[in-house]
Amino acid sequence: MRASRLMGPKDVRVEEVPDPVISSPESAVIDVTVTAICGADLTSYWGYVPGFEWGTIMGHEFVGVVRQVGDDVKTVKPGDRVMVSSMTSCGRCWYCRHGMQPQCENRALFGFSGAYPRLDGGQAEHALIPNADRDLWPLPDTVSDEAAVFVADILSTAYRGVERAALSCGDDVAIVGCGPLGLMAIMVARLAAGRILALDTVPARLEAAESLGAIPIVADEAAIARVKDLTAGRGVDAVIECAGGAPALTTAMQLARPRGMVSVIGAHFEPDFCLDAGAMFANETTLSISIGAPTDDREEVLRLVETGRVDPVPVISHRMKLDEAAEAYRMFEAREAMKIILTP
Amino acid sequence: MRASRLMGPKDVRVEEVPDPVISSPESAVIDVTVTAICGADLTSYWGYVPGFEWGTIMGHEFVGVVRQVGDDVKTVKPGDRVMVSSMTSCGRCWYCRHGMQPQCENRALFGFSGAYPRLDGGQAEHALIPNADRDLWPLPDTVSDEAAVFVADILSTAYRGVERAALSCGDDVAIVGCGPLGLMAIMVARLAAGRILALDTVPARLEAAESLGAIPIVADEAAIARVKDLTAGRGVDAVIECAGGAPALTTAMQLARPRGMVSVIGAHFEPDFCLDAGAMFANETTLSISIGAPTDDREEVLRLVETGRVDPVPVISHRMKLDEAAEAYRMFEAREAMKIILTP
Amino acid sequence: MRASRLMGPKDVRVEEVPDPVISSPESAVIDVTVTAICGADLTSYWGYVPGFEWGTIMGHEFVGVVRQVGDDVKTVKPGDRVMVSSMTSCGRCWYCRHGMQPQCENRALFGFSGAYPRLDGGQAEHALIPNADRDLWPLPDTVSDEAAVFVADILSTAYRGVERAALSCGDDVAIVGCGPLGLMAIMVARLAAGRILALDTVPARLEAAESLGAIPIVADEAAIARVKDLTAGRGVDAVIECAGGAPALTTAMQLARPRGMVSVIGAHFEPDFCLDAGAMFANETTLSISIGAPTDDREEVLRLVETGRVDPVPVISHRMKLDEAAEAYRMFEAREAMKIILTP
Amino acid sequence: MRASRLMGPKDVRVEEVPDPVISSPESAVIDVTVTAICGADLTSYWGYVPGFEWGTIMGHEFVGVVRQVGDDVKTVKPGDRVMVSSMTSCGRCWYCRHGMQPQCENRALFGFSGAYPRLDGGQAEHALIPNADRDLWPLPDTVSDEAAVFVADILSTAYRGVERAALSCGDDVAIVGCGPLGLMAIMVARLAAGRILALDTVPARLEAAESLGAIPIVADEAAIARVKDLTAGRGVDAVIECAGGAPALTTAMQLARPRGMVSVIGAHFEPDFCLDAGAMFANETTLSISIGAPTDDREEVLRLVETGRVDPVPVISHRMKLDEAAEAYRMFEAREAMKIILTP
Repeated sequence: MRASRLMGPKDVRVEEVPDPVISSPESAVIDVTVTAICGADLTSYWGYVPGFEWGTIMGHEFVGVVRQVGDDVKTVKPGDRVMVSSMTSCGRCWYCRHGMQPQCENRALFGFSGAYPRLDGGQAEHALIPNADRDLWPLPDTVSDEAAVFVADILSTAYRGVERAALSCGDDVAIVGCGPLGLMAIMVARLAAGRILALDTVPARLEAAESLGAIPIVADEAAIARVKDLTAGRGVDAVIECAGGAPALTTAMQLARPRGMVSVIGAHFEPDFCLDAGAMFANETTLSISIGAPTDDREEVLRLVETGRVDPVPVISHRMKLDEAAEAYRMFEAREAMKIILTP
Repeated sequence: MRASRLMGPKDVRVEEVPDPVISSPESAVIDVTVTAICGADLTSYWGYVPGFEWGTIMGHEFVGVVRQVGDDVKTVKPGDRVMVSSMTSCGRCWYCRHGMQPQCENRALFGFSGAYPRLDGGQAEHALIPNADRDLWPLPDTVSDEAAVFVADILSTAYRGVERAALSCGDDVAIVGCGPLGLMAIMVARLAAGRILALDTVPARLEAAESLGAIPIVADEAAIARVKDLTAGRGVDAVIECAGGAPALTTAMQLARPRGMVSVIGAHFEPDFCLDAGAMFANETTLSISIGAPTDDREEVLRLVETGRVDPVPVISHRMKLDEAAEAYRMFEAREAMKIILTP
Repeated sequence: MRASRLMGPKDVRVEEVPDPVISSPESAVIDVTVTAICGADLTSYWGYVPGFEWGTIMGHEFVGVVRQVGDDVKTVKPGDRVMVSSMTSCGRCWYCRHGMQPQCENRALFGFSGAYPRLDGGQAEHALIPNADRDLWPLPDTVSDEAAVFVADILSTAYRGVERAALSCGDDVAIVGCGPLGLMAIMVARLAAGRILALDTVPARLEAAESLGAIPIVADEAAIARVKDLTAGRGVDAVIECAGGAPALTTAMQLARPRGMVSVIGAHFEPDFCLDAGAMFANETTLSISIGAPTDDREEVLRLVETGRVDPVPVISHRMKLDEAAEAYRMFEAREAMKIILTP
Repeated sequence: MRASRLMGPKDVRVEEVPDPVISSPESAVIDVTVTAICGADLTSYWGYVPGFEWGTIMGHEFVGVVRQVGDDVKTVKPGDRVMVSSMTSCGRCWYCRHGMQPQCENRALFGFSGAYPRLDGGQAEHALIPNADRDLWPLPDTVSDEAAVFVADILSTAYRGVERAALSCGDDVAIVGCGPLGLMAIMVARLAAGRILALDTVPARLEAAESLGAIPIVADEAAIARVKDLTAGRGVDAVIECAGGAPALTTAMQLARPRGMVSVIGAHFEPDFCLDAGAMFANETTLSISIGAPTDDREEVLRLVETGRVDPVPVISHRMKLDEAAEAYRMFEAREAMKIILTP
């Protein structure tokens, strides 16, 4: 089959590789129909993931049709159209039993190696799914493949970040970072809050945020003052940090009102983030970081799409072929694209 | 001054009465600018309130401008445009200190007598406000008198009912009863939920609900089955009962899914409601009744209006003069009007 | 094997019946080591369960040792000492996936028939467990069989009722009914509340409650006044109703302070409970009914026992042999015993 | 009157100063009966508070008897025995109205200057109370002066930290720091949790923790491993950080299990705390800092004392005279005393 593999830093190649085969009675093989590139893929693309095995097939956002299932698979069958959770999980450990998929003791992220055990991803014609009864989920007819690819990862992550913010009706919410994840967060937060103040530096992203109903705010030095002006001098009730990295988190901490909540869904790897603990104490702030849990939340997230309350598809800026993966990664890294869909 | 008084069952008369005067250092007198008729007024109109004193000035939904204040009043001054909480409260008892205005040991409802100590209401040119620092609240310029009259009572009640329902993003919510209170509940629930299923028997009310984005459902014998059809056979995650009375509550209890919540904001006086405790046990239902708390919640509710997230004004169907109060009550009782505003 | 079967109203007989055999790849057979009689068993004992099949083996509270497992069973193996959840559940339906075991679409209660599909119980030498990976749970060495038999049912139910009450540190809690379930509730509520006020009419039960640290209150006509005296005239913050039936629920509703919570874990089958909806409205009460969920909560409940925070064993008043089951039921019905343990 | 004033770093002097007089219609003067030294006092004692005015009367933990009240004071009268909230607050700003006393726009801490406007404290024969209706609270006869002095500050702080931790029955909780605040936290957490694991380096403090029912753990390099051993390798469900400063917070972050909560009530002034954001992301940790709010919580906290569920008095290690204040500060700084009470 054709597959998009990372052979070295910034070296994505689509080449012929052996077809995956059923590896255990719990596994399945699917035909991939739609796959997407995620900001998290850039971490390995840039060579930042310790222990990453060059040759790993990329991609943790994908949907497909079941081709073959192992003997113990009970909830899906060949021919079923399915979404794939971005992270496999065992369903048996303490964390899985307590509804904490991202903390599963046996987790692995599709398209990654190093941080977790290698698990080839979905930017390919077919993909092996280790624990089909948990990793796969049949799609309703009313949810398109293109919509479902967001449920697999970033829409679920946004859902988790908004739920964690524990909003009251009418709360003012700031979204830090209006990339694809931030736009998902705006769509979901609009169902649970009052005003959405969206911060970014890229004009096109701010326009996209505004088109979703948010108040766009250029994330420059005056941004914090502008947010305070809009909120009676106090700051917002909750911040959802969707960009990752230290500068975004630093900004986020300054936007929350006293007793406010900073709910982080951007990725963080800084071992030495410089936290203003004095300000956090003075303001009695809460800081909470969440990882998306598509296996735990997919029914709730799919419902948002099914009922039309959220439509993630307009976030797709480019539809390309799998064979164009190298060019797609280049464009995505250069921020020439908002969200790129690849089809085999 | 001119005032609308209830002289007996269905006997509303607008006549000249003495102007109110400052009665204590904490009190104030306001010039009423807008007042409304509420469904709760019909309880006394029909003569159902034990101990009601004929001659009480009607009305607990009103806004105005401060005319005079007592010596101890600190937060409002003559000339301030203010909303009036529908219920006065002391601010000193255990309930007030714990944020439970409706349970205040010294509460009284404007325009009522009997159930609480008599407190003349706001369907008049002027009104005496017993505890001005708590009962009054300055209005922002961006909130019109007509919008503010809803904050005084039913929009605050709707807010409370929705908050009590503790919704998650995407939850299915049923609204039982699409009168003015139910329409307020739809507007607020839209900020915190997924689909809104609105039940009523009156076509015009269902149309109003639909225009606010709800799915209209005729509240006939097939309604429960229809709700279950729309919700995978389970019922809705939460019900907000906005009609009051036994039939509405009976319906509400049947609409909630297992482990669901029935949040009641309709009024109930039945000492012997026939509750299917067996079904409630089998389904592990939660039933919670709330009374609006405009003094506790007004800033949050005003923010919904100020930010444009909720606009209650279109619910007003008729604007009449205070002198037409008798005719207005007749129309309101006959359901010829959705919401009637009176101006002195 | 020997088994205690209900052959008709109040007709329990211990007789020889065929040994159970593995019925599906997910099932297991266990050797029962300890089993108990529960208040819920009296419902079938009295002949009150519609459709009950005479001959059903009794008992939903039991622990044992795995004897044999089906081919698909993965989490337990022969020789494991296990607790058995009182109710089997599928683990696949919407309710199971959302942590609502008692609402499982495929649930059945051990020792019952009629209300659910027949599922022979554990008052026998051996028992067939339909869904071993969910129904069974390995026991830590530090938890005795006698303690574990409570985790299977009533201690888990008490845990659920206390968690549902959402107590704050120091809250006053009333326990209505001090039978075995009420005593479990006292033990758990002591870990989450301030004072425990325990109501019952039976002196021995009140003494047992007092020995656990509760304030005993005779549940006579003066009880409500006494509770109010102890709580500044307001009533308790939360009530946990552990007795079931209409009189207990009526009492419970009167003990809660305004804005209080009535968390019910007693069983209810009344289709026409007379609810004072007027009082509930005036007081803004919340009423919530829960069913124990030992499969969902067992790790948390076992931890209470393992860490010594709760010790249910002293509630056992009698230890008898399985062959004495008929006499044990007679004693339990007559309230001559608090909790009876049977061993095969 | 005699008063303990800070004249420079480590320079406490008890000298004659003018008696305080009523300064506004809302103020009162009390006769101090008992006052205590708090860890927070050391911050100014060491000269670390920018802008501190030498000569400020020390002390924010004190109780007394009302001597004189201003014309507008309504809830207390001369002769009333009262506790004093450690921080005055206005009751009118947005924060006060929303139950956030520590964020009051007009707050000031007794015995401090610099950080807030100067407010002379209670280590004196008399004290001026700016906003008597909010700052004072009548004491029940059953609560001694010595117990009440804890309600004024650190017991309320502990209550807040435990409530913020949102514990479930049976949760494992780690307490970092077993000084007076940590011991208060142990007493309160025992009412809401399972096991308490108490960390400190001082043997006497660990013994005190153990005597309150906690499991003592020496806070050395092996402490984190020891906590994990006790908690199935995962870490505790919640940590309450009671020591303040960077090392304690660093430890606290490492003790919490994935998805765990770190509730901080120790004081923090570090503008550049080195946070392991990568670990916090990987573990999805929540970090929340709270300041005690005795005005908001005093009734709940007093109830803990009144009902005997918490007894803070044994934490007092030394009872001295006000005139010995300089020696008392020396002993407290040297950790020769756990808690010192001064009486005028």
